[in-house]
Amino acid sequence: MRVVLVAGTTATAKIPEISAAGADPTLVGHTPSADAEIIEYGDTVRSPVTPVSPTGCPTPAAITRAVRELTGFDVLTVDAGLAKPTAAPTIDVGARPGRDIREPEPVPTAPGAFEAARRMGLALPEDELVIGETVPGGTTTALAVFRALGETFPVSSSLPSNPTSLKEDVVAEALESAGLSPGDAAHKPKLATRYVGDPVLPVVAGLTVGALESGSDVTLGGGTQLLAASALARHAGAAGDLTLATTSYLADDVPELESAAAELDVDLVVTDPGFETTPLDRYAAGEAKEGAGMGGALMLADRMGVVDDVEAATLDVLSRLDPQAVDGVEDGP
Amino acid sequence: MRVVLVAGTTATAKIPEISAAGADPTLVGHTPSADAEIIEYGDTVRSPVTPVSPTGCPTPAAITRAVRELTGFDVLTVDAGLAKPTAAPTIDVGARPGRDIREPEPVPTAPGAFEAARRMGLALPEDELVIGETVPGGTTTALAVFRALGETFPVSSSLPSNPTSLKEDVVAEALESAGLSPGDAAHKPKLATRYVGDPVLPVVAGLTVGALESGSDVTLGGGTQLLAASALARHAGAAGDLTLATTSYLADDVPELESAAAELDVDLVVTDPGFETTPLDRYAAGEAKEGAGMGGALMLADRMGVVDDVEAATLDVLSRLDPQAVDGVEDGP
Repeated sequence: MRVVLVAGTTATAKIPEISAAGADPTLVGHTPSADAEIIEYGDTVRSPVTPVSPTGCPTPAAITRAVRELTGFDVLTVDAGLAKPTAAPTIDVGARPGRDIREPEPVPTAPGAFEAARRMGLALPEDELVIGETVPGGTTTALAVFRALGETFPVSSSLPSNPTSLKEDVVAEALESAGLSPGDAAHKPKLATRYVGDPVLPVVAGLTVGALESGSDVTLGGGTQLLAASALARHAGAAGDLTLATTSYLADDVPELESAAAELDVDLVVTDPGFETTPLDRYAAGEAKEGAGMGGALMLADRMGVVDDVEAATLDVLSRLDPQAVDGVEDGP
Repeated sequence: MRVVLVAGTTATAKIPEISAAGADPTLVGHTPSADAEIIEYGDTVRSPVTPVSPTGCPTPAAITRAVRELTGFDVLTVDAGLAKPTAAPTIDVGARPGRDIREPEPVPTAPGAFEAARRMGLALPEDELVIGETVPGGTTTALAVFRALGETFPVSSSLPSNPTSLKEDVVAEALESAGLSPGDAAHKPKLATRYVGDPVLPVVAGLTVGALESGSDVTLGGGTQLLAASALARHAGAAGDLTLATTSYLADDVPELESAAAELDVDLVVTDPGFETTPLDRYAAGEAKEGAGMGGALMLADRMGVVDDVEAATLDVLSRLDPQAVDGVEDGP
């Protein structure tokens, strides 16, 4: 059992009001590097900040780490375009940070990284992979990828109020600058991610395709970004059992998730961490409702019978992190 | 508890008859990449070969992996100049593959990598680090480093018969091409490793210095190469408790180890895996008697009361590796 964290960046996250993954826009590039460190070490090491949302909700990586401490799963972090140093050990698939999707070719490394990730997915010895992501701005790029593939699914947000019309405007600009109409990239996952995606999506999709080819079970642990990765894998022609494991917060936010998963022949597993009445209720309030493998980790916690211990373990992880992050949870807005 | 594997290469290993780390000289560059995969995954993934000595003794990484399966320690692989791709996740400290030490400046990346490793050693949250190495040809570069520092300690070999006079000739050439006399690099660890070392030694030494500065306990798990890393750390002015954990095979091969460790104020821990009467007796016969963290892993196994289980766990690991490696063990020469 191994959890693979695919971590990268896209300059799309720098568009004002688009992402909650960082206390302010200048820190957002550090979030994936810090998330990887928190899951690997239980603390930041090289990263200068603990990722929190603008209102102080800490990164879901703290929950993934808490589940790791409870269950002992192995981790593999894939550098899918990190922009800042990380002390977490990573594998290289040739990905580079993504540019703003309103530019003509934001992810030139997408085709190569998809193939390198596919070979890695084929070669990994595990029978079961759980794949998560951390890429600020990733729901906007996921929306663009859905449209390029000709899919009409919606995306979620790490903000309490989803800036839907802003995302639709950005996606329309992205498709125009790429010279693509909706559906033009159907069955062409490398094309979709190269011209309107982020560097994380082709890596998740490539790993998924390779692992399914090798007969492994694949669970994508996340929300609508990993629904987009599922769509990319299916558009690449991958058959085989595929599961999307997400949180109840995300599933409540996106009622269309169930039908979308069914349409892609993806099993949906929804886990409720039961944070509503605890100091962690900011997650339930609609911030940071998914990400950094949280939904996949919660599925593993549930399977191993420790989901009721996740709350205490998360508070323990947060007590070791930057005090600012803990204050954000405990004091409320 | 974390085991750090510092993995790199030096073209010094290509000198005929100098190293046992690879069935033939053309495969030796793959050994550190494969060792890292074996410890991380229990099998090779990207690497085309399972490292075996010229007579078929499998890599000591199999034993380190076996102890990991018994004890669950975390691993961190540091890329200290890998020459071939590895599927093991790694951190980058700016090291590049080392050139033959008979060239004037074989490791230009040594000073920068030493400092990057030192910062990493300072930042890692663990209270205790066990550091191992994998670098074919590393005993020859260790010998050159001893001489440059002005130390007269001997080095071991991964071959049953240590090619001592060949190593002495190579070291003499290395010192001459660097314009150094014995002792010229005393108290100058970056100078010693830059001009006559390999890229692994400055990284091990830097990690050690940083971790000692942060108050962590450091155990170097290995043989005379890690004795050289201890010397580098002491020559860098690092105080603090330092342990060298090695195998009984290595200690038997180098009777001077005890006095050398005492001279460097290093505690020596020797663990006997008890392989003499088993299919693993090739290790006891003097091949691959240390390396890839084996001595450190055995110390951990002993501390956790599972040293008697290492033999069976190692055979289990080998049964999953390349059949050639297993044949090498089971059939004898």
